[in-house]
Amino acid sequence: MAFKIGLLGLGTVGTGTAEIILDPAGRNPLLKEIEIKQAGVKSLGKPRSVNPGVITSDLEGIVTDPEIDIVVELLGGLEPARSLILKAIDRGKHIVTANKAVIARHGDEIYTAANKAGVYVLLEAAVGGGIPIIKPLKQSLGVNRLKSVIGIVNGTTNYILTKMAAVGADFDNVLAEAQKLGYAEADPTADVDGWDAADKIAILAAIAFGGRIKREDIPCEGIRQINATDISYADKLGFVIKLLAIAQTNNNSQDDTLQVRVHPTLVPKDHPLASINDVYNAILVEGEPLGQVMFFGPGAGAGATASAVVSDILNIVGILKSSGKTRNLDPLLSCSHQHFATLTPLEEIETRFYARFLCKDIPGVIGHLGTSFGAHHVSLESVVQIGFQGELAEIVVVTHDVKEGNFRQALAEIRTLEAIDSIPSILRVL
Amino acid sequence: MAFKIGLLGLGTVGTGTAEIILDPAGRNPLLKEIEIKQAGVKSLGKPRSVNPGVITSDLEGIVTDPEIDIVVELLGGLEPARSLILKAIDRGKHIVTANKAVIARHGDEIYTAANKAGVYVLLEAAVGGGIPIIKPLKQSLGVNRLKSVIGIVNGTTNYILTKMAAVGADFDNVLAEAQKLGYAEADPTADVDGWDAADKIAILAAIAFGGRIKREDIPCEGIRQINATDISYADKLGFVIKLLAIAQTNNNSQDDTLQVRVHPTLVPKDHPLASINDVYNAILVEGEPLGQVMFFGPGAGAGATASAVVSDILNIVGILKSSGKTRNLDPLLSCSHQHFATLTPLEEIETRFYARFLCKDIPGVIGHLGTSFGAHHVSLESVVQIGFQGELAEIVVVTHDVKEGNFRQALAEIRTLEAIDSIPSILRVL
Repeated sequence: MAFKIGLLGLGTVGTGTAEIILDPAGRNPLLKEIEIKQAGVKSLGKPRSVNPGVITSDLEGIVTDPEIDIVVELLGGLEPARSLILKAIDRGKHIVTANKAVIARHGDEIYTAANKAGVYVLLEAAVGGGIPIIKPLKQSLGVNRLKSVIGIVNGTTNYILTKMAAVGADFDNVLAEAQKLGYAEADPTADVDGWDAADKIAILAAIAFGGRIKREDIPCEGIRQINATDISYADKLGFVIKLLAIAQTNNNSQDDTLQVRVHPTLVPKDHPLASINDVYNAILVEGEPLGQVMFFGPGAGAGATASAVVSDILNIVGILKSSGKTRNLDPLLSCSHQHFATLTPLEEIETRFYARFLCKDIPGVIGHLGTSFGAHHVSLESVVQIGFQGELAEIVVVTHDVKEGNFRQALAEIRTLEAIDSIPSILRVL
Repeated sequence: MAFKIGLLGLGTVGTGTAEIILDPAGRNPLLKEIEIKQAGVKSLGKPRSVNPGVITSDLEGIVTDPEIDIVVELLGGLEPARSLILKAIDRGKHIVTANKAVIARHGDEIYTAANKAGVYVLLEAAVGGGIPIIKPLKQSLGVNRLKSVIGIVNGTTNYILTKMAAVGADFDNVLAEAQKLGYAEADPTADVDGWDAADKIAILAAIAFGGRIKREDIPCEGIRQINATDISYADKLGFVIKLLAIAQTNNNSQDDTLQVRVHPTLVPKDHPLASINDVYNAILVEGEPLGQVMFFGPGAGAGATASAVVSDILNIVGILKSSGKTRNLDPLLSCSHQHFATLTPLEEIETRFYARFLCKDIPGVIGHLGTSFGAHHVSLESVVQIGFQGELAEIVVVTHDVKEGNFRQALAEIRTLEAIDSIPSILRVL
């Protein structure tokens, strides 16, 4: 008996998905039991490189087709993806999706409906492209007390930062080149401002720490303000700059809030994430008693993403073959948590900081900085007078772990100092 | 309803496993539904750091206890592990094991019995310690046409090679230090001669390429002959030396044999496996259309290994909760292939080689080497006169991809040359 799927979308990932299913030789033999019953597209007239049989523009017809077991949503975006997913769930169909945006923003509604209907919503492709990370988090790593999930989960920004570091170029030039190469979109906002990474860490955090995450509450800084100067100074201090998506518990056992944030970060060169370059992604998971494990691979691309999509389809087929028509969900694969996690307020987060100051009064300024930081309980790891810009001395400070609120108060005071011209850069340090 | 498990063995991994199960707070909530019904040990009198309830020396009693759903075999070694596993399967119990040796050597018999009985045999902990690799291979990566699985899967040898490279020390000294630190056993044979890695690649190859592997057919070289000289020369040429366990298809589509081998290998410094140091493990999987993904983490240790063991237990519990008493196995998680893979004969394998020659006749010798290699279709990538040992010049040759048989024939001819004193080192290059 073949398991029938309906594909919503035949863009690059949809085409890659169809290519794997239509050419099963040499792959897992279970693939031969999957049949693409219908593929839904917006425009019927477009020339296509795959022929998955029935192509239709009637997307509603796919999600209501009684013969279809699994609906594979590869449209992207919020609507009509959300409505079609909900309608398919209502008809008892399992869902596979690569759509991080719709899950990050409407996961609550979608999972509530799926649990009620007894269907799976799998989304391996939504984070890390072809890297298996969602299933390992759900199935393997959750026996640990997880401390942190830290990822380089956006290939575009990682490519830009890698290039900036390699050639010493500034952001705008490298972005233009990345756009020419197809690594960045014409409108790069979702990538370079960190929104895509925030969608992904919302999903990972919910799975790892068992509470739903309000996407709009995630503090999110992009990489537009990163420049060749800070990359070079970071290098001298032993760091590379990466856009990290971070979800972690607080060290204080009284505090059950969760830190979830996206920002460019100075990463020590000997840290496993420091050597993840170009468009590659990696996710580092730490827990007790496991220690650290890292998952590395292609975070985007039609083939890699399609690999993750088809693996989800295959998982559901495997379950259907073994458990038949039961609507009892495997709790490791379904999404069972109902509560929302409380995020740690940004000012309460403890982290290290890097700040670059342009200063007038060189002899006295280090004393002034030390006094102001000290008054706000900000302990300094290093203070280095690292260069000049015209008449102004550049001083770079790296702090120990400090509360972000204290650090910001100290900076507010320092800005009023006569000796300080400006503070061009403030970055967090892992 | 609690799911009851029987633990065979309360050594370090058994203790770690019990610790996770007995202290479920902050972990996956499904853990609270697991109960250790009995724990079997060899010696009842030993003091123990965990108290999992009923401790018995009657191992047979555990595998025949009708209330036990899952038998967790952590005894290690071939017997009585094999017999107890088979008896538990016969009684309809699912198996979780960390025992690579018993699966690599008796997997055929064990899986045949398990498929007949409709039970799972899960073994995430057998390879890569706490790194999820078995389940991702089974569930996620098999939709690809897999080309290769290459791993650093033995922490002891990776520690020794890392230390040798860092301090320029020879094998014997570093081994002694590793033994003192507990990173190497008193009898280090299984690790340093590559047997442990061969067990593990036999398991990975069977899963990745869907054919059972005869463990005794795997060519296996250890690291005893690696010395500071070759590590230093490799470094100059842009390589590090790692003990790799390799399973890969041949590039020739007419050839459906499988390469499976374990040997020290020169790895280019920019390769993802080159930076895996100390006792860490990593497994790199390449397939079409996915590309390369890598899994990195602690390859040994009580906590990491216990994390993998408990994840397998939890997987079975999840399935039991959703699919009830059906004995239809999920084909993605069971082991369905019946045939044995044919391994590529060593002399047919194409790989690059590194060879170090001690030579008398320096001016003429490079010409002689070139002539002999050329006569046997061995194409050279580089020939470097790299140093002296007394009166003898050291010449290092790196070849392009060549058939191992051709390379060995060329070496046999070269050994007869008047100008050649000896060939102290022959290593493969990735």
